[in-house]
Amino acid sequence: MNKTITVLPGDGIGPEVIKAAQKVLDTVAEKFSHQFTYQNAKIGGVAIDEDGTPLPQETIDLCKKSDGVLLGAVGGPKWDTLPGHMRPERGLLGIRKALELYANLRPVTAHKSLLDASTLKREVIEGVDLMIVRELTGGLYFGQPQERRQENDGESVVDTLYYKNYEIERIIRQAFELARLRRKKVTSVDKANVLESSRVWREIAIAVHADYPDVELEHMLVDNAAMQLIRDPKQFDVVVTENMFGDILSDEASMLTGSLGMLPSASINGNGPGLYEPIHGSAPDIAGKNLANPLATILSVAMLLRYSFLMQEEADAVETAVTKVLEAGYRTGDIAEKGQPVLSTEEMTEKVIEHIQLAVTN
Amino acid sequence: MNKTITVLPGDGIGPEVIKAAQKVLDTVAEKFSHQFTYQNAKIGGVAIDEDGTPLPQETIDLCKKSDGVLLGAVGGPKWDTLPGHMRPERGLLGIRKALELYANLRPVTAHKSLLDASTLKREVIEGVDLMIVRELTGGLYFGQPQERRQENDGESVVDTLYYKNYEIERIIRQAFELARLRRKKVTSVDKANVLESSRVWREIAIAVHADYPDVELEHMLVDNAAMQLIRDPKQFDVVVTENMFGDILSDEASMLTGSLGMLPSASINGNGPGLYEPIHGSAPDIAGKNLANPLATILSVAMLLRYSFLMQEEADAVETAVTKVLEAGYRTGDIAEKGQPVLSTEEMTEKVIEHIQLAVTN
Ligand SMILES: [Mg+2]
Ligand SMILES: [Mg+2]
Repeated sequence: MNKTITVLPGDGIGPEVIKAAQKVLDTVAEKFSHQFTYQNAKIGGVAIDEDGTPLPQETIDLCKKSDGVLLGAVGGPKWDTLPGHMRPERGLLGIRKALELYANLRPVTAHKSLLDASTLKREVIEGVDLMIVRELTGGLYFGQPQERRQENDGESVVDTLYYKNYEIERIIRQAFELARLRRKKVTSVDKANVLESSRVWREIAIAVHADYPDVELEHMLVDNAAMQLIRDPKQFDVVVTENMFGDILSDEASMLTGSLGMLPSASINGNGPGLYEPIHGSAPDIAGKNLANPLATILSVAMLLRYSFLMQEEADAVETAVTKVLEAGYRTGDIAEKGQPVLSTEEMTEKVIEHIQLAVTN
Repeated sequence: MNKTITVLPGDGIGPEVIKAAQKVLDTVAEKFSHQFTYQNAKIGGVAIDEDGTPLPQETIDLCKKSDGVLLGAVGGPKWDTLPGHMRPERGLLGIRKALELYANLRPVTAHKSLLDASTLKREVIEGVDLMIVRELTGGLYFGQPQERRQENDGESVVDTLYYKNYEIERIIRQAFELARLRRKKVTSVDKANVLESSRVWREIAIAVHADYPDVELEHMLVDNAAMQLIRDPKQFDVVVTENMFGDILSDEASMLTGSLGMLPSASINGNGPGLYEPIHGSAPDIAGKNLANPLATILSVAMLLRYSFLMQEEADAVETAVTKVLEAGYRTGDIAEKGQPVLSTEEMTEKVIEHIQLAVTN
């Protein structure tokens, strides 16, 4: 297949991990006889420096004309004093909005050889393989009114949790589709005992479930979900929830494994190109030093292959290679334990590529 | 001192653990020369059965006329099929509202002898001693409008996060006061990068801090707080946050120790009587069998002494007794490990009382 990928290296360690990811993509293209064409574009601090805006129109246009977008990281101390609308992070929010990416996929996988990095006990974290599906474009973060008020009896402030029903339906449908590619279980998280939006959410979840009788559906209150993630994270497969609950739960879940440098993410909309990026930041302290862990970005490539290109075998090959490399004891600095030899970004990338080539040859 | 305590045993194991707590109160009264007068009143299922409502007016009146309220637990399968407004839980919401209890205090203490019950590693959980202070009467759970809408382009739904500024100020002030009784650190949790209410929250926190220069104040985003509770819960002393964030974070925090049967809570308003109760439920399966763990209720008594009666020494005596009893290896069924002898509710209570008497005699 021919696919066009827009590449947004961004700031800090972004360019290094993106370079690593592209090498992995090249290997996949070669081994599986695909052709991947890259379009480079600017976002974040580098775009501010060169074009005076964190998200040039040209970047948006290129992203829209591609089959998938791969992003490194944005931000750094250099741009921290700029006004809000000029911050690098605005580029990220802007591109999500421009591509209408309403579904944020945050998988958490406990890699067997990294279990000790968790603050949870080995037997609790071993085998965890869950995905939080967070609604990304609605809810409390975007609802109107959002304002301060001067009332007769004093000042007050209001934010609004607003959803159109179709926004709820499409994200829940997305979760069921994802569950079909996994262990066929959806946990719909809400606060239906208190919120009207949650009661609607639950009704829609039940209605959509009728189209997916092969997938199990359970409902869980958000406060209980926050407990269960600690008590027994293995119980979860796909967890779907609204924007703010998803923000909190996905970050809570990301801490379970203790290896933030390993976690990929995807933001998709079901039709146009999706955006794939590691959840870690731009780590300006180690930028340009060939020290960054490229695995979260490489695993984001696997998600790009799986969810935007529907290349399951290719995605499996990348994920398996990462697992094998970890099992073989290779580590970057962030995931190395005392005494373990530490690989550079490039060395780690080479190891992953070797394993993909090996696996495909056999 | 003379104090009047309204006692609401409620349902399930409620009456047993309340009986245990009263015995402890009697011991404190005797040893420290106080006089505690008890007024019994009905709430929850027992009130539905006898008076046809989960919260009789008489109960409200008695609570208002007392110095503190001690509650066991409400609810059970017998009342699960009743319509919403007739459920036992309504009694709980009703009494919180009637007493205007806007501050929910949820301490989490890792008892050294129970560390193995946690799903977190010993070194992570050992020494944890934090308190979540949750705003309980405002925010997303009570704001208006809360409704479904029929719009030109389809159905939608809205909930409203609303705060009057004075509601934010009083809960933050409460947190600073509590921090002064503890390790003098307040973590104010918000989502100030997204919500207007959080930006107001943060401004008020900074303003109130001026009155408490001896207390350290830090701000933390709610998603980060959900991570930090798992990564390093020891960093927290007092955590203050709005209603829904507090609901999620307090339940997440309560799972850290793995011993729900040990956790007390308080709901206070700074002026009138506070309400003290264990966070566990009515456990109908073991009700009336003398098997329930009374320690969460006994620790709620310690909170009653500390926060409503300002009896620090007495509160310390109760908490120390519980610690000593655990160190001596005494366990109820819910916290016993394999092979440990199991005490009944009454036996465990006796052990606590012995230790209070011993300590005070010495
Ligand atoms: Mg977040
Ligand atoms: Mg809760």
